[in-house]
Formats: sequence, structure tokens, C-alpha cells
Amino acid sequence: MSISSKVQQGMVQGSWIRKMFEEGAALKRQFGEQNVFDLSIGNPIMEPPPRFREELRKLAEHPLPGMHRYMENAGYVETRAAVATQLSLESGLKFTANEIVMTCGAAGALNVVLKTILNPGDEVIIFAPYFPEYINYIENHAGTVRILPTNEQFAPRLGVLEEAINARTKAVLINSPNNPSGVVYSDDLLRSLGKLLEKKCAELGTAIFLINDEPYRKIVYDGRQCPLIWSHYQWSMVVTSHSKDLALPGERIGYLAVHPECPQRSDLISGCIYCNRILGYVNAPALMQHIVRHLQAVTVPVSEYQRKRDFLYTHLTGMGYSMRKPEGTFYMFPASPVADDIAFIRELQQWRVLAVPGSGFGSPGYFRISYCVDDRTLEGSLAGFRKVAEKLKSG
Amino acid sequence: MSISSKVQQGMVQGSWIRKMFEEGAALKRQFGEQNVFDLSIGNPIMEPPPRFREELRKLAEHPLPGMHRYMENAGYVETRAAVATQLSLESGLKFTANEIVMTCGAAGALNVVLKTILNPGDEVIIFAPYFPEYINYIENHAGTVRILPTNEQFAPRLGVLEEAINARTKAVLINSPNNPSGVVYSDDLLRSLGKLLEKKCAELGTAIFLINDEPYRKIVYDGRQCPLIWSHYQWSMVVTSHSKDLALPGERIGYLAVHPECPQRSDLISGCIYCNRILGYVNAPALMQHIVRHLQAVTVPVSEYQRKRDFLYTHLTGMGYSMRKPEGTFYMFPASPVADDIAFIRELQQWRVLAVPGSGFGSPGYFRISYCVDDRTLEGSLAGFRKVAEKLKSG
Repeated sequence: MSISSKVQQGMVQGSWIRKMFEEGAALKRQFGEQNVFDLSIGNPIMEPPPRFREELRKLAEHPLPGMHRYMENAGYVETRAAVATQLSLESGLKFTANEIVMTCGAAGALNVVLKTILNPGDEVIIFAPYFPEYINYIENHAGTVRILPTNEQFAPRLGVLEEAINARTKAVLINSPNNPSGVVYSDDLLRSLGKLLEKKCAELGTAIFLINDEPYRKIVYDGRQCPLIWSHYQWSMVVTSHSKDLALPGERIGYLAVHPECPQRSDLISGCIYCNRILGYVNAPALMQHIVRHLQAVTVPVSEYQRKRDFLYTHLTGMGYSMRKPEGTFYMFPASPVADDIAFIRELQQWRVLAVPGSGFGSPGYFRISYCVDDRTLEGSLAGFRKVAEKLKSG
Repeated sequence: MSISSKVQQGMVQGSWIRKMFEEGAALKRQFGEQNVFDLSIGNPIMEPPPRFREELRKLAEHPLPGMHRYMENAGYVETRAAVATQLSLESGLKFTANEIVMTCGAAGALNVVLKTILNPGDEVIIFAPYFPEYINYIENHAGTVRILPTNEQFAPRLGVLEEAINARTKAVLINSPNNPSGVVYSDDLLRSLGKLLEKKCAELGTAIFLINDEPYRKIVYDGRQCPLIWSHYQWSMVVTSHSKDLALPGERIGYLAVHPECPQRSDLISGCIYCNRILGYVNAPALMQHIVRHLQAVTVPVSEYQRKRDFLYTHLTGMGYSMRKPEGTFYMFPASPVADDIAFIRELQQWRVLAVPGSGFGSPGYFRISYCVDDRTLEGSLAGFRKVAEKLKSG
């Protein structure tokens, strides 16, 4: 075979999100797009905010000289400074451009961070349910994945975490607001997590990074502010993107940020800049860097997502589905009415409703719904959810 | 230390291009930008062609619905089809969208290809002088680099290549038009290379890929057409970008193409699409995909680069510098007047002229000049080149 065994194996196993996408495409061809209710993908239906359009028009009409050339691998200093200003505002800490590297999305940022910190065999802890690409990203850089369970509220169990941490633990990777559960970690939880990691670093004489993947930081509901890791732990980093808050997932524009008081942060940032280069990303796309520089305080109308959440939450719980009410993101993660979440998803598919089984996120017995879709799709999905609930109740 | 040993080591060794960049920045601060003649970086001074501006303006004024959303990991089918049409025109073969994956630049394309084909320890052969990032890219994916010498014309020595190929050889990576030498491989050379690889595949019972990294395919001089690998070998792939032909290096837009008659090409392409995703690139930037779809037949005015080449070639050879006349790219690679190319570069720096020692490309005794700069810089550099030539002659 001409391709790598590991890649071949990964492709055969596939990902559930991808499988649902492909089966959905087949259903759409068979029944017509409007008769399939696809809640499987986190591809926001919203267009970027009007301010984005304005900045794009300005640059198209009055191009800056050299605005498509290479810049420093870290990104434009003006863009990094704008990100730093926003993070300082949100956190009360003093970020500067020196703590920021612009990246090709949050996926680029996370790969850069992992390449920078991992020696072969170093362990990275994640919590189920998890975004499934984390496993690929950690293994890209010869790291070892440790998957830990969460409690019934989808929060890390700190006792389990404490036991799992050992001398090879290089990082704990969290994702709050969380895909797929929609949970936002509380300030108390983050404080306890920070304290635990401090204690383990001291005990083991190692540095354990806390990395929050937070592309949904601004997509939080009911008047919430998203609690931040910055005030609770110095060895911390954030990887994120403007895929969700500015609805730009196809443009691959994001950044990584290092705690301004992180020990050895200068080496860490230099390492990240170097890895941004040698991983072949080279730099975040130039035009998008010019634009998002002006949009750090801008967000898509989150109330729209909240309205969609409320609609679906009310209807599904009314049908007997059980779930924790999402506090952010545009996902919900109800319990499957039967233990076998894959069988449940297959039933839903009979009604042309597409969702992703919890098994795809390391949490069998649940399923994920993406509600970043138009209202017609949400409304259209209700009949299928009702039929399946009734069938399973009576069965 | 909190960062990976390998990354730390890589950063200490640094790259010569990077070193020159940093020392150049220091010189510019000291003497003023206009008094430093920086020929060290391949960052084209040209702006993108007017047709690019038009397409950008159109999309800014009349956005397509959903034009910034995720698309298939392979890229928009319309963009891939446009690339295929252009490649079919150039090669006489029948490319379709199915042989093309849009990528984050040529660097992204090459990393995707290497991740897709390499098992740990598989060997990739490159030829000195080489683009130094190749070593990082091959090692990113657990490959082993084999560096082979070229002849005095900077062409691979086929006898040496034949001896070097073994059962672990997974790919031969070439770069024509060549950075740093400016050489364009002849059709005869590519034919012989194809024949040799066919013979070795048959002998060894393996598949050896021929990969051409060809971002400079359209930057060729004196009425040349760039000879293509497609007609000479089926197990072939191209990785490339629009960084040079459309002057968009900061935008990270490129693609990979697989020979339409490559055996197992469907597995190969599926693998590349999968690796585009799991390496964290996810997809090539969306807006740029929409634009370059319409620009496959458009190129920056190459005659401008040819004029700059002629200017510098005439002056430098007149001073006694010896070099092969570049046939393409925007680099030249003269012999250093003294054996120690680093000492020579240091001398040049005394005159505030920046170039990169051949040692940085695996070929000591030479130096690289980038002439994708403004005329003032080219003209200003001549005094330094003359002084150093005279000093070394008289010394």
C-alpha cells in the first residue's frame, strides 16, 4: 500500500461526525436537501457581522501596500496587540503582543502548542466527552492521550484527575465552553483545577500546562460571562479562533495566548512561533489578520443562538428527552433514550434527522445536536425526535 | 525546561535565512531602512495582479451566501475543477477536481503529502542545494532525510540517486524551478528521472513517489515553458501555491495535485484530504479559494523579474562573480569568491548587503541572492558587491 499504515487505519475508523456528514449527503441526494434535518455539523449558518463586511470592503477598495506579503511568523504586531488589548480587558491582566501568536484557526493553534511542548511519550489529559480531533492532534506530535471521565454535569472529576497526573503529564487540555456538552466551566471549578495543578507541579517538580481550547468563549447564554483560566493558574495557555464568534470557520483565523506571568513564557512563545513555521502553517492568513485586528470586541448576535437553544430545549425536554441545559456553544448533549446511542441515531436517521452519537466523543449513551442551523431545520427535526421518543417508549 | 527538546535544539541551530533576517532588522534599525540592501528573503515586492483586486472587490461588494463557512476538507469543488482545467491545459493530461486538494500554501501541501505517505523511518531523498524547511517537514512526520549532491549545473546526479534508492525510499522530492539555484530542470532530465524511478520501483517492488515542489512554475525566463513531471512518471505529485505567481505569500493558498493515472490515486487523495484535516489545517482559506478559482491563468508580470535578473546578472558577472544564469524563480546562487561562504556573507554585511550563505541550503561555497526586491535595493547593493570582490581579489 502506498499510504501510511497509521493514516490508513485512521481513515477506516473514520470519525462519527464525518460518517454522519457522508450519510447525510446521501440522504439529501435521495430525499432533497429540504427534507433532511441535519444537526450533525458545527458549521454556523450565520454570516459574519456587518463590521466584518465593512472592514473587508475598505481593504478591497483601498488596499494597504504589501498587505498580502509574508509577515513575521507570529503575525502582524498590530493584530497581536489588538488581541492583547481585548484579553487584558476581559481578564484584568496585562497582555502584550508578545504573548500572542496568530494562527490558522484554533486547530492550528493547538497543533502549534502541542508540537512546542511535547517530548515523545509525554501525556496530555483530556476529558470525555471530548472533541474527537484532540486525539489526532496529540498523536501528530508523538504525545500520549489520557482520557478521563467527567461527572454527571460533564465537569472533570478532580479526584480522578489528581490520581492520573504523573511525571509524564505535560498538559491538561480543557474546552470550556464545551463541545459537545454545551457546559461552561464555573469559576470555582477553574480555581480548584488551578490549585490542583499547582500542587501536582510542586509535588512532581514538573511544569504542567493548562490549555483551554475556547473558540466558544463569547457564545455564552443567559447574560453569563465565560469564566477564564487566567486568574487561576500561571502555566496556562488559550487556543482559539474567530470561527464561531465572527462566523469565519472557512477562513482559518485564530490565535494562541500565553499567560503573561507564565514562567519561561519567552521560550514558550519563541517555540510556538518556530513551530508555526516548521509545521508548514508559516503564518495566519494575512488579509484576515488585517480585518480581525479591528473586530476583537465584535461578536455575532449570540441571542440568536440562545433563541435556538431555548426552542429546541423546550421541545425536546417536553418530549421526555433528558439533558443539561446548554450554557454556551451551539451544541446540546442529551442522554440517548436507549443505552445504545448508535442504535438511537440510526432510528433518528429513519426520520431523516441527523445527529452524532456520544460514542464519537468518548461518551456512549448520549448524542450531540448542533443548533447553529436555520429555524426550518430545527422545526423540521421535531417530528423525527417525537416519533423516535414515542417508539422507544412504547417499545 | 518546559518546551520540547527537539524544538529547543532546532531553535538554537536556527536557520540561516532567519539569522540574516534578524541581523538585517538590527542593521536597519542602526542605519535606516534605505541604507540596508536586503537580498535575503523571498518575499515578493510585487502586488497581486489587477485581476486579483477585481475579484476581491467583487466578493467584498457582493458576498456569496456562506462564503466564509467550512467547506469539504478538500476545498471547493469549483476551485479544484478550475485548477484541474489549468493543469490539463498545461500537461495535455486529463485532470479532474478529484486529483486536487486545496491547501494552506505549498508548505501545507507538502506536509499533508508527507503525513499521508510516510511510515516511521521511510526515507525521502532531496538534493543540495535544498530549501531548508524540507528537513523540518520530513521530520515532522517521522521520515528520514537523505541529502544527495547535485552536479555543477545543480542537477541531480542520476548515478548517485540510483545507488541511494533502497527499500525504505518512499519519495524523491525535487524543486524545479529551483530555490536557491534558479535552475529549471530540463524535460530530458525529468524523463531520465522518471525512467530511473520506474526501474527502481520494479526492482524493489515498491512505490516511490516523485514530488515536485513548484511554486515557481510560472516564474520562468527567456520565453521558456517549465517542463513538467506529469508526462514522465505516474507515481507523481505536485505541491505548489499562489505565493509567487499571484504574489500572495501571506494568504497561504496553494494546492496539491496527484497524477491522474497514478495507481491507488483514490486512496492517496483520500489520505491527503484526511491529513489536511487531522494536521489542523482543516481547509485552505475560503475567501482565497473563491478568488484564485478565477485566476488560474493569471500571473504577475514575469518580465519584471527577468529584468531584475538581467540587471544583477550583468553587473555581478562583470565584477567577476561566477554563477549559472537563473532560468526561473527570483533567486540566483553565485559561487562565493572565497571558499568560506559565511565569511563572505559577513564581509558583504559590512557593506550593509544581506544575502544567505550556501551553507544554509546544504551547499557551502555559494550564496543566495533574492531579487524580488525594488530596483533601488538592487542598485544600492552593487557597491557592496564590488567592494567585497575587490577586497577579496587584492587580499
